[in-house]
Amino acid sequence: MPSYKAPLDDYRFILNELWEARELSAMPGFEDATPDVIASVLDEAAKFCEEILHPLNQSGDAEGCVFENGTVRTPKGFKQAYDKYVEGGWPSMNASPEHGGQGLPHTVGFAIEEFICSANLAFGPYPGLTAGAYSAIAAHASEDLKARYLPKMVSGEWSGTMCLTEPHCGTDLGLMKTRAIPSEDGSYRITGTKIFITSGEHDLTNNIIHLVLAKLPDAPAGSKGVSLFVVPKFLPDDDGEPGVRNAVSCGSVEHKMGIKASATCVMNFDGAVGWLVAQPNQGMRAMFTMMNAARLGVGIQGLGIAEIARQNAVIYTKERLQGRSLTGVKAPEKPADPLIVHPDVRKNLLEAKAFTEGARALAVMIGLGIDRAAHHPDAAVRQQSNDLVALLTPVIKAYYTDMGVETAIKMQQMFGGHGYIREHGMEQFVRDARISMLYEGANAIQALDLVGRKLPQNGGAAVRAFFATIQTEIEDTLTDHDLADISAALEEAFAKLHQATAWLAQHAFANPDEAGGAATDYLRIFALVTVGWIWLKTARVAQAKLKEGGECSPETYDGKLKTARFFMAKVLPEVEGRFRILTGGCKAMMDMAEDQF
Amino acid sequence: MPSYKAPLDDYRFILNELWEARELSAMPGFEDATPDVIASVLDEAAKFCEEILHPLNQSGDAEGCVFENGTVRTPKGFKQAYDKYVEGGWPSMNASPEHGGQGLPHTVGFAIEEFICSANLAFGPYPGLTAGAYSAIAAHASEDLKARYLPKMVSGEWSGTMCLTEPHCGTDLGLMKTRAIPSEDGSYRITGTKIFITSGEHDLTNNIIHLVLAKLPDAPAGSKGVSLFVVPKFLPDDDGEPGVRNAVSCGSVEHKMGIKASATCVMNFDGAVGWLVAQPNQGMRAMFTMMNAARLGVGIQGLGIAEIARQNAVIYTKERLQGRSLTGVKAPEKPADPLIVHPDVRKNLLEAKAFTEGARALAVMIGLGIDRAAHHPDAAVRQQSNDLVALLTPVIKAYYTDMGVETAIKMQQMFGGHGYIREHGMEQFVRDARISMLYEGANAIQALDLVGRKLPQNGGAAVRAFFATIQTEIEDTLTDHDLADISAALEEAFAKLHQATAWLAQHAFANPDEAGGAATDYLRIFALVTVGWIWLKTARVAQAKLKEGGECSPETYDGKLKTARFFMAKVLPEVEGRFRILTGGCKAMMDMAEDQF
Repeated sequence: MPSYKAPLDDYRFILNELWEARELSAMPGFEDATPDVIASVLDEAAKFCEEILHPLNQSGDAEGCVFENGTVRTPKGFKQAYDKYVEGGWPSMNASPEHGGQGLPHTVGFAIEEFICSANLAFGPYPGLTAGAYSAIAAHASEDLKARYLPKMVSGEWSGTMCLTEPHCGTDLGLMKTRAIPSEDGSYRITGTKIFITSGEHDLTNNIIHLVLAKLPDAPAGSKGVSLFVVPKFLPDDDGEPGVRNAVSCGSVEHKMGIKASATCVMNFDGAVGWLVAQPNQGMRAMFTMMNAARLGVGIQGLGIAEIARQNAVIYTKERLQGRSLTGVKAPEKPADPLIVHPDVRKNLLEAKAFTEGARALAVMIGLGIDRAAHHPDAAVRQQSNDLVALLTPVIKAYYTDMGVETAIKMQQMFGGHGYIREHGMEQFVRDARISMLYEGANAIQALDLVGRKLPQNGGAAVRAFFATIQTEIEDTLTDHDLADISAALEEAFAKLHQATAWLAQHAFANPDEAGGAATDYLRIFALVTVGWIWLKTARVAQAKLKEGGECSPETYDGKLKTARFFMAKVLPEVEGRFRILTGGCKAMMDMAEDQF
Repeated sequence: MPSYKAPLDDYRFILNELWEARELSAMPGFEDATPDVIASVLDEAAKFCEEILHPLNQSGDAEGCVFENGTVRTPKGFKQAYDKYVEGGWPSMNASPEHGGQGLPHTVGFAIEEFICSANLAFGPYPGLTAGAYSAIAAHASEDLKARYLPKMVSGEWSGTMCLTEPHCGTDLGLMKTRAIPSEDGSYRITGTKIFITSGEHDLTNNIIHLVLAKLPDAPAGSKGVSLFVVPKFLPDDDGEPGVRNAVSCGSVEHKMGIKASATCVMNFDGAVGWLVAQPNQGMRAMFTMMNAARLGVGIQGLGIAEIARQNAVIYTKERLQGRSLTGVKAPEKPADPLIVHPDVRKNLLEAKAFTEGARALAVMIGLGIDRAAHHPDAAVRQQSNDLVALLTPVIKAYYTDMGVETAIKMQQMFGGHGYIREHGMEQFVRDARISMLYEGANAIQALDLVGRKLPQNGGAAVRAFFATIQTEIEDTLTDHDLADISAALEEAFAKLHQATAWLAQHAFANPDEAGGAATDYLRIFALVTVGWIWLKTARVAQAKLKEGGECSPETYDGKLKTARFFMAKVLPEVEGRFRILTGGCKAMMDMAEDQF
């Protein structure tokens, strides 16, 4: 059975030494978020995830959700765990105090999301979708709707969903068939079928608030004619308590590869009462409020799974005795050496370490960016922060989830045949992680978002600013004797990213298929260079702290430096092949006739 | 629900035009294996796999094997399918006529293995392990044992297993604890526990013949002290029919990620009667007879899964309407364009096509190599063929199975969220394929086999001969106007393979960990260049047939040429990054202290 310890030490380094998260408490509204407070919140969250959520991970997978007579029963222990989650005040953590929230920074929220995703990926979506629905209502709904729904969602009494997908449309929501007919009382009657609705029906809360995309009778065609509605399972009565049952019901739950304890529902709306959120036909925009946050959240799922898979592979490869080191016996007192003596095993473990620690540091930077975008007193900083988060959102979603699956597979491989057996839990990580590459926009869609929307946005201001940051970091360290090797490796890969960006600009204008064909490789190069920059920055801080002392042990700083060098030597060069493939263009794909595939 | 059509047309091209398999019928013992006979055998096998095995694939996964009172019940329909397999004479196909076999070439056997692996990966191991056990007995056992066991294994009445792994030892069989005590009658009493025994217990046959590795009382330590025994579930009586039950029993079946219809058993030997196969303490060598064939068979599993996943992704991406082409509407009569208009979708599909068709052509070459090694009248050809097969066995096992999983994941991705749902079957391909990277020697072990044993074997004769073949093909085509671009791309990658080989030779001698740390990347480069060579050869034949006409359509030859160019532009450049990573050396891995992981 796998084990889990939240990476609190690494968060201490990242929050306090790499990024100086203490600036948070200087921002209006975050006065309470001092390093001490953040540390104790993370301690509590770690305890909850390790002791309450993690022990339910394997049983939740084995049992799954059961659909009976229109209701969904979550696995044994999930209701109790959810109640404890609510008692602990976790649902209200990031919510605004005006709706009863604690208003803690998103930086903290991201860290806790990682713990939850490691401990029990299938539990996460129950509170996660509520937080997403909360954001959309808080940002776009009328005061009346906010007052009616938000406090109970913030407390965790009620949960939320996002109802977008229909059987014939996922990515292309313009094809949507669900209809909303206005009533005389200002409400609407929603009719249609939505599929893949996470937490659409379950037994954790006494009401479920659906955010539903639907089309008004006079809506323009395509995605410009989509509106957003709030549709509760039970209509709130005059006291705000769940009253009359609404005409929305669960038709079935999906049988999935993984995250089996998360209910994925077919939801039937049969003239259900709903209220418009935001303006008519502005539903896509409002939904994107949720979606961007959700995409980052899904990226964190990749990180969380990679981390727990890595932890267990490290433990196993230190314990499992098999064969001898190629350079001579390392553990003569034992019948064989532990697996970790082998260079290939170490390479796999370090790939996982370089990804998880690098991705964690980048996620914290994004968390800080979100917090700055919302709370920083300087409007220019808010704008820059917002731009940076927008730019990196598709990169984080796609790269973290690709790497979540890759890492889970590699760590499973460390177990040999034992990795294939349920009992060890490694195969569950692969199955659970796999969804993250697919939902909230399949990863190829993220790549198109990066290339087609985020790069050109505001005339390319965001990407220029981000590249300038990397450039400065490289220049600052190239002449530093201790860091020059790391910096030079990054400089070379960064040059390739520049060339790839120029290639895109040059070719995509003449032929948009060149952008479409290059996007996935471009995103990967972008991600590798971004994480490379994080490792250069990390090395720089670690080197300084090694000299001057810091909160962590010298071994930790030394480990950071070694991991940075590992990343440059053994991970970053992937850029070379990707660059060649990207600049090979799309001709080889487009030349093929459909019948020849 | 997924569909499957055996790739008979591609086999026609590969067998008759790429490799000229008609030479088979000129070899002694293969007189009957004319192109027509081979074609009709493949037709029949295709029908069996499409109509009998494939329909049981999803139900077999859902039902799994049930362990009750020491017996294992295979899923509904498996017994009937196995009976039909026996009726069709399939178990005897490659077996020698002296034991009742049909003596057909392995070239044909490999093709049929691919069909079986595509249609129902979990069914394959039941006859597959029998064939492996047959080989070891046929090669190493006494005439008496052969006469007693082989005819019923060849007919399919009895099945076989390989019992190697124990709870504490898989890769490192020297740690084995199972013991064999000699009896006065020349038999042995075997005691110990074996795990992960594929087909260890089931209800398909009325006897199961276990090949068991165990140690004699006076055996030397380590893997040099391991002997091989034949241990039947029921001792054959005087009529050769199953008689007294032997002291071997199934303790449980494993719950696995996939291939759930394949029974993976814990087998307890409690003083079971067995007979020595081969000489005492020569068990490892005898077992390797089975293992090399088994490794190639596992490689074919990767190919088979990639093929069926690819087929279903092609169908889905042609049918599923979602969004519009970036270069303008392609299907104005429809509400959206099919997914296959998008360059990234095409890239994924073509990666799968380039792998499956290239790997299939290479597998046929290996099949021919095995057949030549056994039947060719010229001893020098037999030796060369044997060397080539030995050299490429670890490459095929590791690369095909890595690619099987990668391809299954990519093809699943083409389905968006639908790929995660059981019903579509794509997620089962990922789960089923995953075992192939682990068993018969985890893929890192294959890489060590290539680098540490196969390259230096006979002073490097095999690899020199193979490289010379590639070199000649490149030289022959570099000045050919129609093929020079393909040839030049391969030449560049081949130069990198040469440099990587030289790097290994130079560094591994001084520090064996350099070999261990580089092996996996080296194997991948080796595989990419090998498949690249196959594509150059394919392009050359296709180009010629386009001019002079052949058995296939002009569109097929044109498709081969386009796929060859796709491979060179969009797959082969992976070599670049891998080469940089390989030559980065193992320092970055070995510098890390164990506590720093």
